Amino acid sequence: MSNNYIRIFDTTLRDGEQSPGATMTSAEKLEVGRGLARLGVDIIEAGFPAASPDDLEAVRKIAVEVGNNPEGGRVPVICGLARTTRGDIEKAWEAIRPALHPRIHTFLATSDIHMQYKLKLTREQVVEKVREMVTFARSLCADVEYSPEDAGRSDPRFLYVVLAEAIRAGATTLNIPDTVGYTLPEEFGGLIAGILRNTPGIEPCVVSVHCHNDLGLATANTLAGLMAGARQAEVTINGIGERAGNTALEEVVMALQTRRPVFGLETGIDAVQITHMSKLVSNYTGMSVQANKAIVGANAFAHEAGIHQDGLLKNQQTYEIMRPESVGASQTRLVLGKHSGRHALHSRLMSLGFALDDNELDVIFDRFKNLADKKKMITDADLEALIADELYQPRELYILDGLQVSCGTMGMPTATIRLRDPEGKLHIQASVGTGPVDAAYKAINSIVQSANTLQEFVVHAVTEGIDALGEVTVRIQGDDLPQVLDPQKESEQPHTFGGYGADTDIVVASAKAYLSALNKLLVASGQYGTPEKAAIQSIAQ
Amino acid sequence: MSNNYIRIFDTTLRDGEQSPGATMTSAEKLEVGRGLARLGVDIIEAGFPAASPDDLEAVRKIAVEVGNNPEGGRVPVICGLARTTRGDIEKAWEAIRPALHPRIHTFLATSDIHMQYKLKLTREQVVEKVREMVTFARSLCADVEYSPEDAGRSDPRFLYVVLAEAIRAGATTLNIPDTVGYTLPEEFGGLIAGILRNTPGIEPCVVSVHCHNDLGLATANTLAGLMAGARQAEVTINGIGERAGNTALEEVVMALQTRRPVFGLETGIDAVQITHMSKLVSNYTGMSVQANKAIVGANAFAHEAGIHQDGLLKNQQTYEIMRPESVGASQTRLVLGKHSGRHALHSRLMSLGFALDDNELDVIFDRFKNLADKKKMITDADLEALIADELYQPRELYILDGLQVSCGTMGMPTATIRLRDPEGKLHIQASVGTGPVDAAYKAINSIVQSANTLQEFVVHAVTEGIDALGEVTVRIQGDDLPQVLDPQKESEQPHTFGGYGADTDIVVASAKAYLSALNKLLVASGQYGTPEKAAIQSIAQ
Repeated sequence: MSNNYIRIFDTTLRDGEQSPGATMTSAEKLEVGRGLARLGVDIIEAGFPAASPDDLEAVRKIAVEVGNNPEGGRVPVICGLARTTRGDIEKAWEAIRPALHPRIHTFLATSDIHMQYKLKLTREQVVEKVREMVTFARSLCADVEYSPEDAGRSDPRFLYVVLAEAIRAGATTLNIPDTVGYTLPEEFGGLIAGILRNTPGIEPCVVSVHCHNDLGLATANTLAGLMAGARQAEVTINGIGERAGNTALEEVVMALQTRRPVFGLETGIDAVQITHMSKLVSNYTGMSVQANKAIVGANAFAHEAGIHQDGLLKNQQTYEIMRPESVGASQTRLVLGKHSGRHALHSRLMSLGFALDDNELDVIFDRFKNLADKKKMITDADLEALIADELYQPRELYILDGLQVSCGTMGMPTATIRLRDPEGKLHIQASVGTGPVDAAYKAINSIVQSANTLQEFVVHAVTEGIDALGEVTVRIQGDDLPQVLDPQKESEQPHTFGGYGADTDIVVASAKAYLSALNKLLVASGQYGTPEKAAIQSIAQ
Repeated sequence: MSNNYIRIFDTTLRDGEQSPGATMTSAEKLEVGRGLARLGVDIIEAGFPAASPDDLEAVRKIAVEVGNNPEGGRVPVICGLARTTRGDIEKAWEAIRPALHPRIHTFLATSDIHMQYKLKLTREQVVEKVREMVTFARSLCADVEYSPEDAGRSDPRFLYVVLAEAIRAGATTLNIPDTVGYTLPEEFGGLIAGILRNTPGIEPCVVSVHCHNDLGLATANTLAGLMAGARQAEVTINGIGERAGNTALEEVVMALQTRRPVFGLETGIDAVQITHMSKLVSNYTGMSVQANKAIVGANAFAHEAGIHQDGLLKNQQTYEIMRPESVGASQTRLVLGKHSGRHALHSRLMSLGFALDDNELDVIFDRFKNLADKKKMITDADLEALIADELYQPRELYILDGLQVSCGTMGMPTATIRLRDPEGKLHIQASVGTGPVDAAYKAINSIVQSANTLQEFVVHAVTEGIDALGEVTVRIQGDDLPQVLDPQKESEQPHTFGGYGADTDIVVASAKAYLSALNKLLVASGQYGTPEKAAIQSIAQ
């Protein structure tokens, strides 16, 4: 591997999914994993297997399906996170070992504030624990990554000691996280340069950077780290992650590409996939992307439309430093209409990266025809919304069988809902609410008795045009569920669930989205047997 | 003024408002201007007066109302943008001269690519034009700023020559824009340092930085420029602006504050106003802010809720580098309920920065009581939504008088709309659509005949809870309108209009938002007399 090659370590499925409400189902995680492999990431951090048996199973599925490419070609490393405990490391290993290239990633904080208040360990105890647990991880797996958590606020001299110990114990990648997004680019670059200069035995290891965006500096810090000699960047799609998020994959990759002569660095990323992956992750997590987000925002390439009409813009580069085509942005255009056949749909879906079997294609073709009756032009964005709505839903315990709503300024908004329960029995309930969505949700609640709090509710029109498909994402918090373990804070967080629905009728889409989130909540509550089983089957290839 | 003082130059109303669909009404611009003054910005770039008579008038109103503080206290500089032409500079001066501290900002590109393809001028011609027009601007106004557009891609040696010429001609501030968001922090810092070192006569001038976020580096580049000696930062609220946007005010201010010992720089910003301003700008422009946006995203301070419950987090700083209170984030909490009186509402609105007269308070109090009947707890976010919906609407040509909708999975979504036209006549129309919003919009279209294309449609629940107020923002493009002049590209852009509506019924909110955008479009079409007159009157103080 050339010394100018930057390994892209994607942690959308671990640090990204850890952000409030970004919870994905096992099926969604698998689909994102497949997409990341197509995108060309070098390492996929697939989750934190010790969090729960479901999380372990989700990581294991990705290790099996994405970590082994039956058609040959490049296979990404599949990585699992573990705290520095035997239990965590064993679970991580259990989850990732089916992969062709497994990696265990373990971490222990090294900043004074974390050691004193969170770990309650002395420096000596931290060094000892790192030595012991990296040794143990290495006894299981040849590829071991160690992160000194909160390195950005750690004493650099202590970092050199801990990292040297980790190297002696067998660590092959040393990841330097700015956990709280506190450092400035010059500082962070200096930290990396110091580590490379002062850590005994570091030469054969890969140094990695992992930044957070609390001050809006994650991309700049990551690039400063790479310029200083780091050769792995830990990133997420759309920069999702806790608080202000992680470094955005698309920003780092496109900065390296756009300014290649300055950096002299390369990645294995197929940038044309970036827009598609951005949309996929946004749909599945319900974390919407603002219009003025770099690279993947709806306005990021706003000049495109005018370019061909405007005689004054003789040279595209006057206001454009990269082409929308280079990140696949311009592909989201009109493709199909009412007269398009099954074959045209199939080949368009293939080129979008969706490999559907015949049954799945039948389902999508029906939805497509139905939509084409209502809407003149079907775009890629519409197709992606249909796929997300139809195929990547969680196991459906309760199914929407019918909805009728009346609302407006004059009366009392009323919704009548008909649901099919897990035993196939139909239930009908009508409710009044403050609006049509509130009424529909109340009617659903009166059938599905499951305490929850709505955290977020967002509707987007998929495409321009008043007849667009409406996409709804909701996020609910289960009021009575056991909490989820956060690996870093070692604390329990409330469990939240995202739901997604698409329909030309936004009230119908809202009801679908709420049911999809409720179904995830019910699966997680364990009242309905093995979590996720059905969902995975529905998309197994 | 201390040499460590950074002037914050806010261009939300100029470069921010220039981004597609962020168009604000004159009344909205004035309210944002007032908010910026309260926030403590040093310079408000209020617009581009030569764009149209409306734009000139909007800037003039801000100069009158915000540029002269009758109660004493600090008064911001009011700045108007002008190309290097006599006409533009005269119009800018006409608009800003009522301000206590007016500034003319003129620009001419200096990069080879812009000079060759856009300006078709030689270097000598550019220098000559800058000399001539800065001299003219200075003959009108003592405070003149000059920007060499696309400085980030300009030959630095040529920059030194142009800037020295501008200084000799009377420029007092020299603003260095990275117009296309191309530079890296080290490069941009180096550019600023080189300018300070090599430009003859620069000592008494203020050097300013103006960055764009195309590679996600706007904040880092701005900070690098300040570290290199620039003493003015050009920014926008939420980082709105064309493409990936401008540098975000909140990121620069909070980085300087959080890392003060490193920077040793200060601003005059009252950071506690940041969250309120973010919300105001997001509402008026319809540019929503993603959850993981630094400082102002919904998740930016996600730890807050857990902090007090979690015994493990002995020290808040373990995962937190600034307190939500420091940017006013935690103030958006429960304040009022159904039994709150007029006085409680008034004092809460005052503390949010809304100074309403008795009539306005009456209107809002009615809406408040009505909402309190439906919703147990009224938060600051609800109040801001009500104010935006009720008071800062454009001149209402068509008024929603009634709406009745039926929809669902079984039938044909149907909407009946009753509108009051500008002459007070009522019109009723029913339409079928692909969903309730489509049906409502078609019914509105059959009454208001005005060709337009829907560009964006977004619904947000204002607050947690299923009974939340729904906020809808839409963006439409007038199909038959004259286009708008873009000062930099010297090209015409399609005119787009944002609309906003809030209601517990999202179909009603959607209809209101569409009507509000349509009313803006009709006003701009000039068929209904002087634009904006009525809107401004309704909030004059």
